[in-house]
Amino acid sequence: VVAGVSSRERIVRTGARLFLSTSFHAVGVDEVCRTADVRKGSFYHHFSSKSDLAKAVVDFNVAALDRRWATAPAADGLSTLRWMANQLAVVQVEFEARLGRVVGCPFGNLAVELATADEPVRRHIASAFGYIEHRLVAAVTHAVEDGSVRADIDADVVGHQVLAQFQGLTLLAKVCATPADGIGPALLAFLDEQVAPGRAA
Amino acid sequence: VVAGVSSRERIVRTGARLFLSTSFHAVGVDEVCRTADVRKGSFYHHFSSKSDLAKAVVDFNVAALDRRWATAPAADGLSTLRWMANQLAVVQVEFEARLGRVVGCPFGNLAVELATADEPVRRHIASAFGYIEHRLVAAVTHAVEDGSVRADIDADVVGHQVLAQFQGLTLLAKVCATPADGIGPALLAFLDEQVAPGRAA
Repeated sequence: VVAGVSSRERIVRTGARLFLSTSFHAVGVDEVCRTADVRKGSFYHHFSSKSDLAKAVVDFNVAALDRRWATAPAADGLSTLRWMANQLAVVQVEFEARLGRVVGCPFGNLAVELATADEPVRRHIASAFGYIEHRLVAAVTHAVEDGSVRADIDADVVGHQVLAQFQGLTLLAKVCATPADGIGPALLAFLDEQVAPGRAA
Repeated sequence: VVAGVSSRERIVRTGARLFLSTSFHAVGVDEVCRTADVRKGSFYHHFSSKSDLAKAVVDFNVAALDRRWATAPAADGLSTLRWMANQLAVVQVEFEARLGRVVGCPFGNLAVELATADEPVRRHIASAFGYIEHRLVAAVTHAVEDGSVRADIDADVVGHQVLAQFQGLTLLAKVCATPADGIGPALLAFLDEQVAPGRAA
């Protein structure tokens, strides 16, 4: 138990970690409560259900990504875009160090498990992906505007491609048990191919 | 009950459909047996567990993809590669027509749900992905050899990228509830950017 952390936050952090380590369905409310050292009454004071906790875990991970992306070093548009994309992969390296293996994207995992099974949670995750994609599209737009990528790039298309490529690379690393530190270089190689300023349009 | 179909095959087809419609964890052996119209004793005659059925479902889907890819029209390497990539997306359109929504990739779904929870199943799915990627890499190699894509393409890299992009696009379509017929064009646009023969190397 970490001093100064509310029981709600302990539950969210514990849920985030347990869902990542195995899966949403494999973890019960009892296990979350035991691991977070809170009573079940406290859980249901804060959350109406495990699905409700899943939404809070999504928000927790969006906030973590926001804090991470807020530390971007000042640079041209392409460098910032590359840095942001690479940070998605750095998260996987950090999870691997903490949890012993590539565990997958916290958004992608819940998306695949719950999109067909829980409509309110699906909408919540879709909204989180919408926000993340919006941030990537904005970064591509900025790179187009400052001339650090090709002028004919469609920012909406490339933002979606980067998010999709990250999701796919991470899914394959998770199932094939390949090291997390391969994700970043593969993602950047892909991005450079798509936006390389020196290529013929 | 379809005449002439063995109880084992009915179980596999039913498992394949039910796992896709919701998720592996959301479907129990009882539901599979009820829907396939087989007794539980018959299930456990053919499969030692639901995990064992998951492996058979993976094999069933690999065989279906193999049959599909075997119908490729004769064409140059790039056209064949584009056709094979597009067929991955056509599968999603067909699932959407049958099941009412984008349900995700049968391999990707099981990969995300089970990779961290069931090591034998993880290895089985990794092997299926290895085979699919091998087929894509072979198609890229053929396209490089017949000169229909840039000569400096790394077939291993592009094969992996295409599989990852398909997985990511499908995951995002599933969670964002966007139409399946958007996946193919997005995948081909991505592929054309990566291998376009007319661009500067």
